[in-house]
Amino acid sequence: MTRPILFLSDYGLEDEYVGVCHAVIARLAPDAPVIDLTHRLPPHDVLAGALTLAAVVPYGPEDAVYLAVVDPGVGTARRAVALEAGTVAIVGPDNGLLGEAAVALGGVRRAVQIVPERVSPWPVSDTFHGRDLFAPAAARLSAGGSLDQLGDAIDPTTIGRTWVGAPVVENGRVAATVIGVDRFGNLRLDARSRDLEQAGLSGDMDLLHHGATIPLRRVKTFAELGGDENGVLVDSSGWLSVVRNQASAAEALGMQPGDVVVLAPRNDTVG
Amino acid sequence: MTRPILFLSDYGLEDEYVGVCHAVIARLAPDAPVIDLTHRLPPHDVLAGALTLAAVVPYGPEDAVYLAVVDPGVGTARRAVALEAGTVAIVGPDNGLLGEAAVALGGVRRAVQIVPERVSPWPVSDTFHGRDLFAPAAARLSAGGSLDQLGDAIDPTTIGRTWVGAPVVENGRVAATVIGVDRFGNLRLDARSRDLEQAGLSGDMDLLHHGATIPLRRVKTFAELGGDENGVLVDSSGWLSVVRNQASAAEALGMQPGDVVVLAPRNDTVG
Amino acid sequence: MTRPILFLSDYGLEDEYVGVCHAVIARLAPDAPVIDLTHRLPPHDVLAGALTLAAVVPYGPEDAVYLAVVDPGVGTARRAVALEAGTVAIVGPDNGLLGEAAVALGGVRRAVQIVPERVSPWPVSDTFHGRDLFAPAAARLSAGGSLDQLGDAIDPTTIGRTWVGAPVVENGRVAATVIGVDRFGNLRLDARSRDLEQAGLSGDMDLLHHGATIPLRRVKTFAELGGDENGVLVDSSGWLSVVRNQASAAEALGMQPGDVVVLAPRNDTVG
Repeated sequence: MTRPILFLSDYGLEDEYVGVCHAVIARLAPDAPVIDLTHRLPPHDVLAGALTLAAVVPYGPEDAVYLAVVDPGVGTARRAVALEAGTVAIVGPDNGLLGEAAVALGGVRRAVQIVPERVSPWPVSDTFHGRDLFAPAAARLSAGGSLDQLGDAIDPTTIGRTWVGAPVVENGRVAATVIGVDRFGNLRLDARSRDLEQAGLSGDMDLLHHGATIPLRRVKTFAELGGDENGVLVDSSGWLSVVRNQASAAEALGMQPGDVVVLAPRNDTVG
Repeated sequence: MTRPILFLSDYGLEDEYVGVCHAVIARLAPDAPVIDLTHRLPPHDVLAGALTLAAVVPYGPEDAVYLAVVDPGVGTARRAVALEAGTVAIVGPDNGLLGEAAVALGGVRRAVQIVPERVSPWPVSDTFHGRDLFAPAAARLSAGGSLDQLGDAIDPTTIGRTWVGAPVVENGRVAATVIGVDRFGNLRLDARSRDLEQAGLSGDMDLLHHGATIPLRRVKTFAELGGDENGVLVDSSGWLSVVRNQASAAEALGMQPGDVVVLAPRNDTVG
Repeated sequence: MTRPILFLSDYGLEDEYVGVCHAVIARLAPDAPVIDLTHRLPPHDVLAGALTLAAVVPYGPEDAVYLAVVDPGVGTARRAVALEAGTVAIVGPDNGLLGEAAVALGGVRRAVQIVPERVSPWPVSDTFHGRDLFAPAAARLSAGGSLDQLGDAIDPTTIGRTWVGAPVVENGRVAATVIGVDRFGNLRLDARSRDLEQAGLSGDMDLLHHGATIPLRRVKTFAELGGDENGVLVDSSGWLSVVRNQASAAEALGMQPGDVVVLAPRNDTVG
């Protein structure tokens, strides 16, 4: 029984980094199906990786092994770990990348710190643990290995989580942060529809950003918007997104990840 | 018997969109091989998607299930369909994306409109039918399901086709439109070698564009061209392409999709 | 017994080129696992392709078939070949792309020039030998075919190698060339740690480039560097790389492939 490996990283596709990890898996677990989730996470962006991984785990196979690598501290003291959450396993650096996904699956049940000699068939480099530690560890789990074969047990409650800022809801307004821009220029906020409900915001609203007031139509689909309109909808992962129809809201509004915005009632002149 | 799924979209590789569709397929049809055709179609560009899909279908496996998603109208009244053409199946939105490929395979034989409850294991979002409808439908076909299990039969002749402009041939000239630029900067025209024959254009010719006259050498391979020469050749899908040798014709000539050009005899001063 | 195919090219992912090669393999060798190494090599850059392929082959499966296509001379007299080196096979154009990898595996043992009629199920185009020759040849090897079935034997010593400039070591200095920039902006030099040893360079050093003197810290990991520091480390393939911590050395230093640099002792005022 070979478990599928679902692989996500910030390695990009310009170089051999992703390919050589695939090659390693094909060598150690020849029958393992490997699925690339994305490798174009912004370089070093642990938060983007954590959110992306958490968005996928509800939809993947029950016996999946997730291989996640965004690892700016490669070669330093941050732990290399493998953990079990729900019915799946997750392998990667313990730098906050893995915690959100584990929470989405009900929390970490067991975890080990990977012992290099137990997983790697060759000397471990200081700069490429994807190839030398994490891909081999995932391959061994895929081929039927157990967590215990990879390393020594650690306290499951110590697996790190990246802080995702919670939106501030008060006075009928929601202050939120842009946490991502997708390929289409949709702006994902760290807020959900329940935050709008809590603020009493139903129907259309205003987006306040850098002194500007931008009307937003509350819609369910992109196609409801006219060519020059901006909208807000609940995206496919449950986040609020500021969007346009067949155009980039990020470009039109000049906004990017990290920007703080306020969602307010239409024409709410109370500051 | 598991059918391979060949997957094409405009989702890009920056986000989890493609990855989560793969995850869904791995969950619903664990043995299905999935082949990524491309996910970097220009966002919302149904025509580019239609031409790309049509270029691939002659070369794929006979039992292929094509999963095609360029879906600017997601969540609106456009139909979600699955169809049979030749020996293969095609799943996607009925917005013009699927018709060219079906024609290349001899036309649509049967088609159904997908019924969400029959294919999706979870509530269907308004903005991500790739994950919630199309990938599940393709997975079910891959695992041996029939069209009828996915939805209700519709008239096969109603499957939409994107209009591809035909070139105008007259007075020994061919007026054509740039329909694509590939990674190498080759400019694909909506004309074929038969159009040149009809216009009586053999050998070298001129390209007229925005008042400029650009000499084109008629070649078979890129390497026949000198460093500063422009050429025209029949590309690997049978379209005429304006090219340079190890350089981008699009950049050198400042041309892009949608531009209209005229192919004319060399030094043809008759307007 | 199906051999895995490991596929690398400069086709990019914007177009159907990679996808249609996959489709061809799925048609000719339905059970062949195909691994994408990278398809975003710089267009026409045979040297980059040769180095990338050579970096992967030590890590791949023992029965791998490597399919490598960077082919600016497609359709011309350059040979289409398949070769055996170590326990693996490599298929591609004989333009210097394949030689480095073969050397890394102990040299070419046997080689054939591909005969189109023996591998291709359709007429061979002049511009897309990936689809029409190389992918079919790799598929046939994957499905159990032998080199001899693909073409006629050629002298294994005639397989071309791209020249990789050797660094110049003298007077306690190393003159090297930037041979690559990865996604993170790390600058790979054509020098190895043994060149530093030969020059007597241990510990920190200076990088001389275009009249500027840039202090480099000798480190093992990115994370040892402060925010404004530049470092030099041995990368995961054994090359020296000029790097920064979570930032692009290429951008910070304004350097790119082809640049010549000198590694010198700190504050070495002797010219």
